[in-house]
Amino acid sequence: MDVRKLHHVAVAVHDIHAALGDYAEVLGLPRSEVVYLDSQKVYATLIPVGDCEIELVQPADPQGGVAKFLEKRGEALHHICFQVGDVDKELAALEQQGVSLIDKKSRPGLAGMVGFLHPRSTRGVLTELCSPMHGAQGQAGEVSR
Amino acid sequence: MDVRKLHHVAVAVHDIHAALGDYAEVLGLPRSEVVYLDSQKVYATLIPVGDCEIELVQPADPQGGVAKFLEKRGEALHHICFQVGDVDKELAALEQQGVSLIDKKSRPGLAGMVGFLHPRSTRGVLTELCSPMHGAQGQAGEVSR
Repeated sequence: MDVRKLHHVAVAVHDIHAALGDYAEVLGLPRSEVVYLDSQKVYATLIPVGDCEIELVQPADPQGGVAKFLEKRGEALHHICFQVGDVDKELAALEQQGVSLIDKKSRPGLAGMVGFLHPRSTRGVLTELCSPMHGAQGQAGEVSR
Repeated sequence: MDVRKLHHVAVAVHDIHAALGDYAEVLGLPRSEVVYLDSQKVYATLIPVGDCEIELVQPADPQGGVAKFLEKRGEALHHICFQVGDVDKELAALEQQGVSLIDKKSRPGLAGMVGFLHPRSTRGVLTELCSPMHGAQGQAGEVSR
């Protein structure tokens, strides 16, 4: 696989604005903009840290995956995301390899085109692949600021 | 706080060699060297990914924190670590600020001199600060390869 870098680490939180405040006060990280991702029914933000980002994600749908995660585990690290050259190419190769996937095709997300592997493939760690789309609005039509 | 970068993300695993194999086969990451950290009673490895690292950590002590984490949660993301200029300076400033800490002073770790904040300060996320020691053996006397 053509992994270029660790793109972000995501934290599931109950209150994204309160969490942004904590990360700003304790770690001195910038208060980045919160967006609503309609396709995933979550509020999310990417806080830049060096060459990577910390994603904070708050569920908007009480039946969604992030809400269920919070119910089970409380606020905690939720997933990691690796940047690759072409998400669809990597997902196809992983499927051929017999790796369990959540997404067989990429879809637009906060970090560009994204796709998730099943945690059982990566030692319980929910793992996302992304290919950021520079100069384009990857989440066109589904991000409400 | 003088956060320079996300240094690593750590995953708690039952079998570090099997986990290294999975990360190599699924994500194409290098099979890095496993070391024993006597002070923490864990086996650990840092897998380079771009400018960051993925740490895998396997408990050697069934009574230790990582073993208890695995018992409660299973294999999962365990902590994140931010690189700072001077861990002791940051820990002292955080204590003054009233932030809950696990370590009030830095100690040698896999990533150089390290210190942990209490997860209650950072939305349930166990957070480490580190200052890598270039050209020095930070874990002198406590790493067995």
